[in-house]
Amino acid sequence: MTTFRVGLIQMDAQDNPAANREKAVSLIGQAVDRGAQLVALPEVFVYVHAFNRMQEMAEPLDGPTAGLLCETARRYGIYLVGGSFLERVPGQEKVFNTNLFIGPDGEIRAIYRKIHLFELIAPGEVVAIESQVVEHGKDIVTAETPFGVIGLTICYDLRFPELYRALADRGARILTVPAAFAMKTGKDHWEVLLRARAIENQAYVLAPNQFGIKPDGSVCYGHSLIVDPWGSVVAKASDTEAVITADLDSGYLEKVRQVLPALKNRRVGREG
Amino acid sequence: MTTFRVGLIQMDAQDNPAANREKAVSLIGQAVDRGAQLVALPEVFVYVHAFNRMQEMAEPLDGPTAGLLCETARRYGIYLVGGSFLERVPGQEKVFNTNLFIGPDGEIRAIYRKIHLFELIAPGEVVAIESQVVEHGKDIVTAETPFGVIGLTICYDLRFPELYRALADRGARILTVPAAFAMKTGKDHWEVLLRARAIENQAYVLAPNQFGIKPDGSVCYGHSLIVDPWGSVVAKASDTEAVITADLDSGYLEKVRQVLPALKNRRVGREG
Repeated sequence: MTTFRVGLIQMDAQDNPAANREKAVSLIGQAVDRGAQLVALPEVFVYVHAFNRMQEMAEPLDGPTAGLLCETARRYGIYLVGGSFLERVPGQEKVFNTNLFIGPDGEIRAIYRKIHLFELIAPGEVVAIESQVVEHGKDIVTAETPFGVIGLTICYDLRFPELYRALADRGARILTVPAAFAMKTGKDHWEVLLRARAIENQAYVLAPNQFGIKPDGSVCYGHSLIVDPWGSVVAKASDTEAVITADLDSGYLEKVRQVLPALKNRRVGREG
Repeated sequence: MTTFRVGLIQMDAQDNPAANREKAVSLIGQAVDRGAQLVALPEVFVYVHAFNRMQEMAEPLDGPTAGLLCETARRYGIYLVGGSFLERVPGQEKVFNTNLFIGPDGEIRAIYRKIHLFELIAPGEVVAIESQVVEHGKDIVTAETPFGVIGLTICYDLRFPELYRALADRGARILTVPAAFAMKTGKDHWEVLLRARAIENQAYVLAPNQFGIKPDGSVCYGHSLIVDPWGSVVAKASDTEAVITADLDSGYLEKVRQVLPALKNRRVGREG
């Protein structure tokens, strides 16, 4: 496949899961209307942020969110990066922050559970320790798309280049980073880290983010981005609910990797 | 030590080693006049770029460049990141691209030989394969400064986050990237990668670059940068010969690492 159209959903999820799911499906429809063959939702698009309610708001893997995402992917015949939802696991005290990757047949193709859990300790300003309520995922996860391998990550993972290297070692040509990236860190770190992951791994980066003021008073940064394998920003959302799209171009990706063969030039701790 | 003043030299080296060395010493003097306790020169400040003359222009480790750098460091009582020079090794066909780290006593404290060698293959525009004339270094190198551990890298290394992780694992609080970064890639990759290395490793990044049109017609990007551990640019050179300085602040570094404990949150392939 030469070109592959992707659509990213930027949304402001609040604390009503039914309303959030309805909005997500509506925005997915807009992305499909614009020709998207793969659509990506942001992290925790079902429910955000009050840490003391996360277990209560969690769902099993075969719960309403998974069912709705599978049905929506099948109905539109699209690949769907399901952002994330809080996954309840029988017998486990903490939830997972779980991203489902779904095929156009409505089947779950891959399940990624967030590995790196957010920590921000600014007493008097904000103290958030995600691992108090969320269990670390353990597995590095990729899946197949018509464009090639997609690597799945979530939000805070972005700070850990070794995860993206492991995905590149597994052949990733698309890296996806659904997020609920905070304003405080987003303004200084979001775009620069997304562009760095694209440049150093010579892959497309799809980063749908949340925006808006959340029920706990925290603010998400928005600025959902699509970055090409040279590190150029090819689409960026405004500070509003939005669908952004771009055509991924495999000829361009191959050209970048040929002109600047950095992936072949690796010398330190190479896995592949 | 709470604060530590550093000075970076941006220069336009040409093909006259004696003139380049003289200019470097003069600029080091300017940095010292401005209070720099550590000064960093750019990559290949002694001689740039005609690949077919690199063996001829190389020097042994106890050659004139090393001697001059040690003498200059001792005279001013400064730490000196010696950018790099081409090192000739008896019995070895190719040269090394070698960065000397020298103490205020004039003694060589560490020797770093560039690990990742530049490759740019744009036929009709530029084809440069550094490994045709330069041998890969093998060792990851750090040294001690009054501010803490400094990690030594050179130019193209910047594309390889795993090297900077290895330096962070060894305790690096300063990462230095002397460079002769090209215009073509510099305009799109230089600042974003330097800021990413600072953010993800929560360390100061010192990146003295070359600028100007070189004897082989290539152009270096300039924009020498000092980046703080939050990823903010605290000093940037104009498109001219320049000394830029900044005060590194260990209290600020510790605060960044405390507020956002990302180095402690690593989960994948951790060395340390």
